[in-house]
Amino acid sequence: MNAHSQDEAQPGHVYLVGAGPGDPGLLTLRALALLQTSDVILPDDLVSDEILALASPTANIIPVGKRCGQPRITQAGIHDLMREHTAEGSSVLRLKSGDPLVFGRAGEEIAALREANIPFEIVPGISAAFAVAAELQTPLTDRSSASKLIFATAHHAAGKLELTPKWTGAFPEDATLVIYMPGRNFRALADDLIASGIPANTPCVAVSKASTPEEHVHASTLATLEDAAVGPAPVVMLIGHAIQVT
Amino acid sequence: MNAHSQDEAQPGHVYLVGAGPGDPGLLTLRALALLQTSDVILPDDLVSDEILALASPTANIIPVGKRCGQPRITQAGIHDLMREHTAEGSSVLRLKSGDPLVFGRAGEEIAALREANIPFEIVPGISAAFAVAAELQTPLTDRSSASKLIFATAHHAAGKLELTPKWTGAFPEDATLVIYMPGRNFRALADDLIASGIPANTPCVAVSKASTPEEHVHASTLATLEDAAVGPAPVVMLIGHAIQVT
Repeated sequence: MNAHSQDEAQPGHVYLVGAGPGDPGLLTLRALALLQTSDVILPDDLVSDEILALASPTANIIPVGKRCGQPRITQAGIHDLMREHTAEGSSVLRLKSGDPLVFGRAGEEIAALREANIPFEIVPGISAAFAVAAELQTPLTDRSSASKLIFATAHHAAGKLELTPKWTGAFPEDATLVIYMPGRNFRALADDLIASGIPANTPCVAVSKASTPEEHVHASTLATLEDAAVGPAPVVMLIGHAIQVT
Repeated sequence: MNAHSQDEAQPGHVYLVGAGPGDPGLLTLRALALLQTSDVILPDDLVSDEILALASPTANIIPVGKRCGQPRITQAGIHDLMREHTAEGSSVLRLKSGDPLVFGRAGEEIAALREANIPFEIVPGISAAFAVAAELQTPLTDRSSASKLIFATAHHAAGKLELTPKWTGAFPEDATLVIYMPGRNFRALADDLIASGIPANTPCVAVSKASTPEEHVHASTLATLEDAAVGPAPVVMLIGHAIQVT
């Protein structure tokens, strides 16, 4: 173990850290050291209770999501909390589910930290797709059928779900597609993907609450994906011929 | 910490585990528990000495890469080692750099384990791109400019380096491209990408030996990328407008 990975959280510093998908076993050693030594912890909604239970008993945990029925804090409000607590000399752990630099608003948080001259460290985390593939025991790429791995997200616009923005041009045949935050209209999303040129018989797995005891898996093809068969949010979808769920 | 993540490696089981990019602080808690309790460890070339130093002092470590000037073991040879040692009742840790299910030959190892009826567990790891982005303090996606993240690899065919297989159709404008194993002909690869439609002024960062003390960063654009300025293998490249190296 190198010295750095065991360093305690430092006064006046912010740590932007990925907590992984939920299972505490998928925390990194660096994330655990910071969780155990930070004064203030700002977790997203999706960070699990099992992970927060590893924090110092004296830590001030301020949820910055919809958790506990609180009104959602704004992005600017999160920046304010980081500034206020570091100004008081506290170490602040900004804990995000998965990896902090993918499909979060890390760019805005980094800009706010730089503007306020707050020293910060970023620690990567296991993004849900990797945890899901490990649990399903399926490769994400394959030398013969999937030489590219594409992470995308979906959003709701004008009452219809679509990739953000839509895929333009031919979709590569040799790719595995991972979709984060697919919303709830899975059938419409699958139809969009088929319309983008992905064959209807392509394997598709929708995993709900990955890496938690409530995990639920719906394995289908794009053609046979059923809205009602998919578990509650958060959901991640894996689509492609490399994906083999037995 | 849940019970599962601290379980010792079990006799006759294989653990296909991601070791992350090199920094021991980026190991997962589950990977550490298995490293400390496995009887036999089969590491790839790129697994760092600092990580192997965390293994049990009684572990039998059998490198299955080019390390130490040994001739490279074949994929079938790795399967034989897994079968032989589990048949003797040993627990076997197959330790891969990064994540085990991306751009490795995990599909073949999973098939071999299933065929031999060997019980196995897969543990995800931090893939290099996430560690590189964290160190460079740059987001990988951005709500305004990069809503897709594409992982690809390059190979050498007929004396020329290209994406495997080549990108077909228009390259999406709103993507960040990560290239693993880009080979050494970076200039030719950048020219291929420009020819695929990626603007020549797109930011491009080539990181050598990510997350180790020898890490080396060459920040440029696709137009100004220079072969001679890139450090030794392994190299990972991040390309896109979300990538901001200050």
